Amino acid sequence: MIVNKKTISRLSQYRSTLLRFRELGFVKVFSDTLGDAVGVTSSQVRKDFSLFGISGNKRGGYDIETLIEKLETILGKNREQDVIVVGLGNIGSGLVKYKGFEREGIRVVAGFDIDPTKINKKGPVPTYHLDDMTDFIKKNNIRVGIIAVPDIAAQQVFDVMIASGIRGILNFAPIRFQGAGDVIINDVNLQIELENVIYFVNALSRQPGSVKKE
Amino acid sequence: MIVNKKTISRLSQYRSTLLRFRELGFVKVFSDTLGDAVGVTSSQVRKDFSLFGISGNKRGGYDIETLIEKLETILGKNREQDVIVVGLGNIGSGLVKYKGFEREGIRVVAGFDIDPTKINKKGPVPTYHLDDMTDFIKKNNIRVGIIAVPDIAAQQVFDVMIASGIRGILNFAPIRFQGAGDVIINDVNLQIELENVIYFVNALSRQPGSVKKE
Repeated sequence: MIVNKKTISRLSQYRSTLLRFRELGFVKVFSDTLGDAVGVTSSQVRKDFSLFGISGNKRGGYDIETLIEKLETILGKNREQDVIVVGLGNIGSGLVKYKGFEREGIRVVAGFDIDPTKINKKGPVPTYHLDDMTDFIKKNNIRVGIIAVPDIAAQQVFDVMIASGIRGILNFAPIRFQGAGDVIINDVNLQIELENVIYFVNALSRQPGSVKKE
Repeated sequence: MIVNKKTISRLSQYRSTLLRFRELGFVKVFSDTLGDAVGVTSSQVRKDFSLFGISGNKRGGYDIETLIEKLETILGKNREQDVIVVGLGNIGSGLVKYKGFEREGIRVVAGFDIDPTKINKKGPVPTYHLDDMTDFIKKNNIRVGIIAVPDIAAQQVFDVMIASGIRGILNFAPIRFQGAGDVIINDVNLQIELENVIYFVNALSRQPGSVKKE
């Protein structure tokens, strides 16, 4: 089965929407309600589900509890995921403590930096010198890491992480890594995301209707 | 002219790549070199540029200095952009101080929260109570804001921001806003980005070649 990134992002969105529906006391959901909440068509919802062998009931829709369970199995959320954060600047140190990850069963188990003032082995999430990273990754069998170092240091940090056994990276540095092979990389470029908003706000104010999003 | 979000993201990426090329002492660049650095084809680069009336020279390529200037005019980077951050938790307080924005001529001029311990009107970036946000937005004619509040508070914060004059939002809360009209919204869902990496790392380790990244 060939699955692409966007499909998996939608499954994540379905899941978090279903968790909210469940909190509100709902038991069943139709594909059009779910699609509407996530911003896709109902046929997209059904297509995504059928790709993973999930089927609904035309009259009654999908059972929310069952759906959540199935999605969590697909997304690997039935077990806790350990990740590390490399680079403890303004973004990295926020990510180390980010509640949004915890809630999703993602545990940040350590942070790394070269700055001694950022190191605190006794913190709620311990932080270490970058020199200790390889040992930590190997010893704890860490597979996923977040890169939040300045762009100038990013490629070198990336190389060490991959050589130590990391297979997936969430990358906040505004560079494209070389020699990635079959490593999974998701780039999050906050500057570009914000620049994008600014561009379209300016363009719309100059000439309403002149731009199209997406 | 109809311009979409991805085109503008590419222009941002071209620009930051060109800044690095310039730093390295380069004067000219070919579309294939630039495309390669950004991860797109050379014909995509030429297409994007020609959309905005930028043309190169087959023999000599593009002049880097001219190209940067033109891109900055298109992206509105020839003037400083003021933004506010709403929600000063782990992510929001990191964004208030984020060097990556500064470097791009984006100035975070204020932060807002409901928690009195987060408020410091004398800080390098002053932070205020949420109740003061509407006045601040109107007085300073702020058009762009970042939402980094918990999802439960996000819609209400969004409504107040839009009613106060905000036209564009970079949103870190994992919800879709209702009643957005022609407001520009870019959602950044860090949980989903990281979940995506984890999913593909797990899928690849179970069955190499079984997944495709976009």
